[in-house]
Amino acid sequence: MSTDETPTDAEAACFEAGIKFGSLYHQFAGTPIAPESASSLATAMEEAIENQPHCIDVTVDVRTDDLEAELADSTADYTELTGRFLEVEIVVDYEGCTVVTHMAMEDGYPLMKLESIRNR
Amino acid sequence: MSTDETPTDAEAACFEAGIKFGSLYHQFAGTPIAPESASSLATAMEEAIENQPHCIDVTVDVRTDDLEAELADSTADYTELTGRFLEVEIVVDYEGCTVVTHMAMEDGYPLMKLESIRNR
Amino acid sequence: MSTDETPTDAEAACFEAGIKFGSLYHQFAGTPIAPESASSLATAMEEAIENQPHCIDVTVDVRTDDLEAELADSTADYTELTGRFLEVEIVVDYEGCTVVTHMAMEDGYPLMKLESIRNR
Amino acid sequence: MSTDETPTDAEAACFEAGIKFGSLYHQFAGTPIAPESASSLATAMEEAIENQPHCIDVTVDVRTDDLEAELADSTADYTELTGRFLEVEIVVDYEGCTVVTHMAMEDGYPLMKLESIRNR
Repeated sequence: MSTDETPTDAEAACFEAGIKFGSLYHQFAGTPIAPESASSLATAMEEAIENQPHCIDVTVDVRTDDLEAELADSTADYTELTGRFLEVEIVVDYEGCTVVTHMAMEDGYPLMKLESIRNR
Repeated sequence: MSTDETPTDAEAACFEAGIKFGSLYHQFAGTPIAPESASSLATAMEEAIENQPHCIDVTVDVRTDDLEAELADSTADYTELTGRFLEVEIVVDYEGCTVVTHMAMEDGYPLMKLESIRNR
Repeated sequence: MSTDETPTDAEAACFEAGIKFGSLYHQFAGTPIAPESASSLATAMEEAIENQPHCIDVTVDVRTDDLEAELADSTADYTELTGRFLEVEIVVDYEGCTVVTHMAMEDGYPLMKLESIRNR
Repeated sequence: MSTDETPTDAEAACFEAGIKFGSLYHQFAGTPIAPESASSLATAMEEAIENQPHCIDVTVDVRTDDLEAELADSTADYTELTGRFLEVEIVVDYEGCTVVTHMAMEDGYPLMKLESIRNR
């Protein structure tokens, strides 16, 4: 077991991927959203986070069914963006090491996960 | 001079217009932005805030010249959204009273202003 | 009925009050919150928004009971800040005209309201 | 060179640390801040992010000198929180693997960095 070593490229790639997820979530959570405005918000989220260093690709899907179900039970015609309406994939490349990460609902919570690490 | 009266429709319309401006600014300030992603962010901001009650129309222009000038002086190829890159018009209607509001730079600060109040 | 008149001080005060509410809500919605961290967040929200022009006083109460009830039903020990955990009062003074505004739950929604306008 | 392996605990710890940094930055960037309100905001940021899973410790220092210097050049008495006013350390523990991360200005940019990884 090693101690206080400098990070590997794979570890740095995972750190960068985490930054992108935290940024995406906390920049956009709370945004007013309705089924009609979901697609422009998803595109803006993708293009905004793709600006960040080492970020190769961001894919945001709004779970429109869940959004419509929530609004059907409500007197309002919009709600606030939160994790249960989102499915997100983010791909980061750091010095040739590629990390794929994913956020989706699991047991009622939006869970951010490392999917794969290539060219470690 | 009256005291503690209930608000007029015009006053309620101005309050609603202020809510939209504060929402728009503080939801999206800090978003990573580059000239290529400016247009998708502007569209998402418009459609998101138009969801809010009494909001008739939102127009967001990103001052791309200022954005490009800042990036030309920088080693980064994106920056964070802030007021000096934005020009915004928001129109609110409350019980038939229409309020037009505007945000633009004045003396180096983004200033939010009531432009006109119709059908007071 | 007048058209396109310039705003009165009371209308400007209401606009300013709305800006503060939209700012407070959309800056802090989504913040990770637990009963133990509620008080530091409430204080930060108050002091942050009191910096804004014409803002005399901000009072934020976190509805700790509702927060604890939600966490009791959950496997998580924190959640995200949203309107149903907040009760907020904001006082704005514009050219001697004082506006008191309030946000609280009504019919399941956080409603922002003008309470009173003095020295109109 | 391995391909598509599952993440190590150290890689997962780095991913979690990145999430905390992105969350902290994009939740609070844009908050109105003055020297008098800096300390309550720093405390709220620390306690909010410490709620997140695997987060052991968050230390936020506001660079008050830089804040005062900016306000001395300005007609305003507050500004918006951005990276150049912040120095942040975040410690994450994932399955016994401890990651220390840091954000500070470097060449005019706020840089988030992995400092050390222990018990890899």
